[in-house]
Amino acid sequence: MKKDKLPPALEAATLTEKMRRGDLLSAACPSRTVMKHVTSRWGVLVLLVLEGETRRFSELRRLIGGVSERMLAQTLQWLEADGLVHRVAFEVVPPHVEYSLTPLGQQAAQHVRRLADWIESSVPAIVQHWNKSSVDKLPV
Amino acid sequence: MKKDKLPPALEAATLTEKMRRGDLLSAACPSRTVMKHVTSRWGVLVLLVLEGETRRFSELRRLIGGVSERMLAQTLQWLEADGLVHRVAFEVVPPHVEYSLTPLGQQAAQHVRRLADWIESSVPAIVQHWNKSSVDKLPV
Repeated sequence: MKKDKLPPALEAATLTEKMRRGDLLSAACPSRTVMKHVTSRWGVLVLLVLEGETRRFSELRRLIGGVSERMLAQTLQWLEADGLVHRVAFEVVPPHVEYSLTPLGQQAAQHVRRLADWIESSVPAIVQHWNKSSVDKLPV
Repeated sequence: MKKDKLPPALEAATLTEKMRRGDLLSAACPSRTVMKHVTSRWGVLVLLVLEGETRRFSELRRLIGGVSERMLAQTLQWLEADGLVHRVAFEVVPPHVEYSLTPLGQQAAQHVRRLADWIESSVPAIVQHWNKSSVDKLPV
């Protein structure tokens, strides 16, 4: 069947179209794994700190309050395997490793930054809402 | 000191300014809790599904692949306590509960939707990158 003969709704439902795009509402879609990496607590903060900057592991550890060495290493490994973070090891004395965002990672970081900006600027209104809520409703 | 006498950098560092805005890089900032709720797996998907729609609990459960009753209830409770989700209980037979986004929740949903759109459209490129990576680097 010629593609331009399909009505738009049916066209979007073709297999080609489905494979061209993820579907986060579907539990089995690989986009769920990407979402887990990008929106994990440390994933968000790594993307924010690397936006437009190259950083050493120790710098990332210092800038991101509360992250453990193990969780930072795992997060960077996830983002590297996704093609969002680029890792370069320098074999000097002492050896060190630098991380930066790939072009795909920069795109992710821009969206994450906009969401993070919204969270940071909305937190006073949300905290006010917590204070109005009854004690047993307070988020943990 | 008059506010307009302060240089911009110092001005931004005043206590008032700091309290007016969260700081996600600081482990103790309440913005971390908001981020946890908004970027949790089910938080993201609830915001996407409620964007511009009022839904019953059972509809949300059906639309969001893989969510358990318990996790959906907890996520909705978080988002309600944050002032992002509005809950209305109808005392009819059988009783039912409807959820919708508050104006603040609509703002959050817009940012989450843009990030989700990016993830869904980038997943083919990311999956290609997984296939190129060595087996031991595959994300879990």
